[in-house]
Amino acid sequence: MQKSSGLLTDLYQLTMLDAYLEADMRDEAVFEFFVRRLPKNRSFLMVAGLEQLLNYLERLSFRANEIEWLESTGRFSSKLLNYLKDFQFLGEVRAMPEGTLCFENEPIVQVIAALPEAQLIETRLINLIHYQTLIASKAARCVLAAPGKMLVDFGLRRAHGAEAGLLAARASYIAGFTGTSTVLAEAEFGIPIFGTMAHSFIQAHSSEIEAFEHFARTYPDGSVLLIDTYDTLAAARAVTRLVRRLRPEGITVRAVRLDSGDMPALADEVRKILDGNGCEDISIFCSGSLDEYVLATEYTDTPVDGFGIGTHVDVSADAPYLDCAYKIQEYAGTARRKISPGKATWPGRKQVYRRYDADGLIQGDALVEINETCEGTALLETVMRNGERLTSSPDLTSVRDHAARELASLPEAMQDPFAESIYPVKIAKSLKASAAKIDRSVQTAD
Amino acid sequence: MQKSSGLLTDLYQLTMLDAYLEADMRDEAVFEFFVRRLPKNRSFLMVAGLEQLLNYLERLSFRANEIEWLESTGRFSSKLLNYLKDFQFLGEVRAMPEGTLCFENEPIVQVIAALPEAQLIETRLINLIHYQTLIASKAARCVLAAPGKMLVDFGLRRAHGAEAGLLAARASYIAGFTGTSTVLAEAEFGIPIFGTMAHSFIQAHSSEIEAFEHFARTYPDGSVLLIDTYDTLAAARAVTRLVRRLRPEGITVRAVRLDSGDMPALADEVRKILDGNGCEDISIFCSGSLDEYVLATEYTDTPVDGFGIGTHVDVSADAPYLDCAYKIQEYAGTARRKISPGKATWPGRKQVYRRYDADGLIQGDALVEINETCEGTALLETVMRNGERLTSSPDLTSVRDHAARELASLPEAMQDPFAESIYPVKIAKSLKASAAKIDRSVQTAD
Repeated sequence: MQKSSGLLTDLYQLTMLDAYLEADMRDEAVFEFFVRRLPKNRSFLMVAGLEQLLNYLERLSFRANEIEWLESTGRFSSKLLNYLKDFQFLGEVRAMPEGTLCFENEPIVQVIAALPEAQLIETRLINLIHYQTLIASKAARCVLAAPGKMLVDFGLRRAHGAEAGLLAARASYIAGFTGTSTVLAEAEFGIPIFGTMAHSFIQAHSSEIEAFEHFARTYPDGSVLLIDTYDTLAAARAVTRLVRRLRPEGITVRAVRLDSGDMPALADEVRKILDGNGCEDISIFCSGSLDEYVLATEYTDTPVDGFGIGTHVDVSADAPYLDCAYKIQEYAGTARRKISPGKATWPGRKQVYRRYDADGLIQGDALVEINETCEGTALLETVMRNGERLTSSPDLTSVRDHAARELASLPEAMQDPFAESIYPVKIAKSLKASAAKIDRSVQTAD
Repeated sequence: MQKSSGLLTDLYQLTMLDAYLEADMRDEAVFEFFVRRLPKNRSFLMVAGLEQLLNYLERLSFRANEIEWLESTGRFSSKLLNYLKDFQFLGEVRAMPEGTLCFENEPIVQVIAALPEAQLIETRLINLIHYQTLIASKAARCVLAAPGKMLVDFGLRRAHGAEAGLLAARASYIAGFTGTSTVLAEAEFGIPIFGTMAHSFIQAHSSEIEAFEHFARTYPDGSVLLIDTYDTLAAARAVTRLVRRLRPEGITVRAVRLDSGDMPALADEVRKILDGNGCEDISIFCSGSLDEYVLATEYTDTPVDGFGIGTHVDVSADAPYLDCAYKIQEYAGTARRKISPGKATWPGRKQVYRRYDADGLIQGDALVEINETCEGTALLETVMRNGERLTSSPDLTSVRDHAARELASLPEAMQDPFAESIYPVKIAKSLKASAAKIDRSVQTAD
């Protein structure tokens, strides 16, 4: 499967293109991607996925065998097939940088291109921005719920497919995770990887202590031992004996991992056992069904040093999708607006301004027409013109730093994982007036 | 990203392999993949993803540049690197065929291979079987909730990445969907694709009726018109006038699509408008935030002929993950068992038997030791030996037919989307005895 294959799209994109080309509707269109409403229990979202979108736009093409296949279906005009054969995205993109906080109705990505180009990219654009924004937002909540702790993404196995697993590692790293267990994420993105052992490792040995010693000797510079396969506290005591025995050989154990049971209580007991037996330097790592709610309510005063967080982050379990859309806002110089009940949009090309208080905390956003002057900081930046990036990809560390600054700008009430969305996004009068004007002029079919 | 790249795994698989190779632990291991408990509101699951798993096992390898990269990290022994360089999966696989119903604790896939081989494949095995099983199960619920209706997967845009979107099209088709909007799903799997137009198409035109006529003329053999951009009923009336006007030219409109508002009520009104104006042959298609609950409660007596179902199926919104695991059950001829609280497993290699009543409805399953004789039909079949498939891939139509027969075997109480899991899975006495024996003999670390 080619990630930038033109076939990775909805059929209606191609049928619409066929009609557009037939009528030569190739004027400039403006589309915006935005989230209509935040999910319940999301007081903010964090933008991610722009890097993959820009890669896609630079590479999107139809290979010869794909054109042949499209032709073989008998569905499309030769005009469309010729158009797709030479397809290249040559439009302009404005976007919020990855790691930026965003709220309802705010354009995250704005695409300005000939109508067929802006339309064709819809499906994959949503697919890429939606998923990473979903995961960065979820991961950021975990970071806020466990300040100063080491968080590692363990979710590849239950992520929805290979790409989801890989991009979840990326999105959660941007949001502030320390790393991931996904090996490919280090190879592709340079994200630090972490890993220990599975229960099967313990079970394949004839005894738990044999498994511990075997693993410790294989990784003499600092292994992590999984101690919950049979009896967690007994295993913790055994680890201390093993450590004392191996220390003279220069072999160190870095941490123990718990993965089941009443982990906050067990962690307390394990800490005591470790400290009482000269293993103050061994840290405690927990995994298993963790999320921001559990971290914030059960782990705040525990001696746990780090957490492996998998499924709940990689599928954003309590909110597995966003109510997002990519909508036409302007065509051939005229603002457009959808007025379907519950799905109305604000017309025209827009900008988002954010205001901060004296302490640097965010106070409120304003959604305005693009050329309107407004107090605050403008959030959308031009990142691509004529299908070419204006700057090289920012490195992931700087994206991560930006994300950390963004999280630091959240008022305390919005950091609570149980907080609902309360942040004010003001719609400019000019947009309301423009919407009203369109509503009056719209030619319905009747 | 290579779908069969060896780097698409958790780091701990590689660290464990390093230890196994160092100690020459290469005896035969048996692992099983199963779902511990069904999610709330799942009375059954439907197995899918085996085809992609077998493809993976046949192709899993480490390319030269991947070995170089692994070496460059300085983390792994040269023994491991040499092993991975020549890696080939040479094990045996037994599995439930795709489309089969399954329940808690039942092995869906059983892998018998040298310990390092059986271990290395864990992450991607779970990743592939978990996701498609999740989606086939969700889609099957929609099929049961809308008997006889046309259901089309519209979910690519909000699926979690490209692979999720493509595999959701496949899993939902197996479960009984009529097709998908994902173009690549027809190219790769031969799944019928469907598509109409987006709201942007209407909005890019100067009037709705102009957009309708334009699209109808582009697809004269039967277009589908989206009628909810401004005023649904006005648009329906306009469609009837357009149809009468274009009919003499041999142009037909096949359906209208609704995507917002009170769709069950609107569908009634639209049906009356169509029927009252000589358009009895035009069908009604609905999309937008649909799932099995909405279908079963709001659409049972409506004149809607088909549904586009997207996000809720492609992310399995009400249960976005399964509590599944891939656990070692035997090593070097000895049954193994994990006894962590809440995560204990039944030891040894197992088989599942299913009993049916006189009407062919499922009555109960039994989980037994593999060579135990038992009443009913055995569900696990050997599908791969020495790393080679025993039969060629079944075509998707026959998988789909099998799935339909499976759904037909569900007692009525289990077809209700609000039903919880009630199906009996009996654990054989022999397994309980074996578990007790292991518990007595287990050497914890203390």
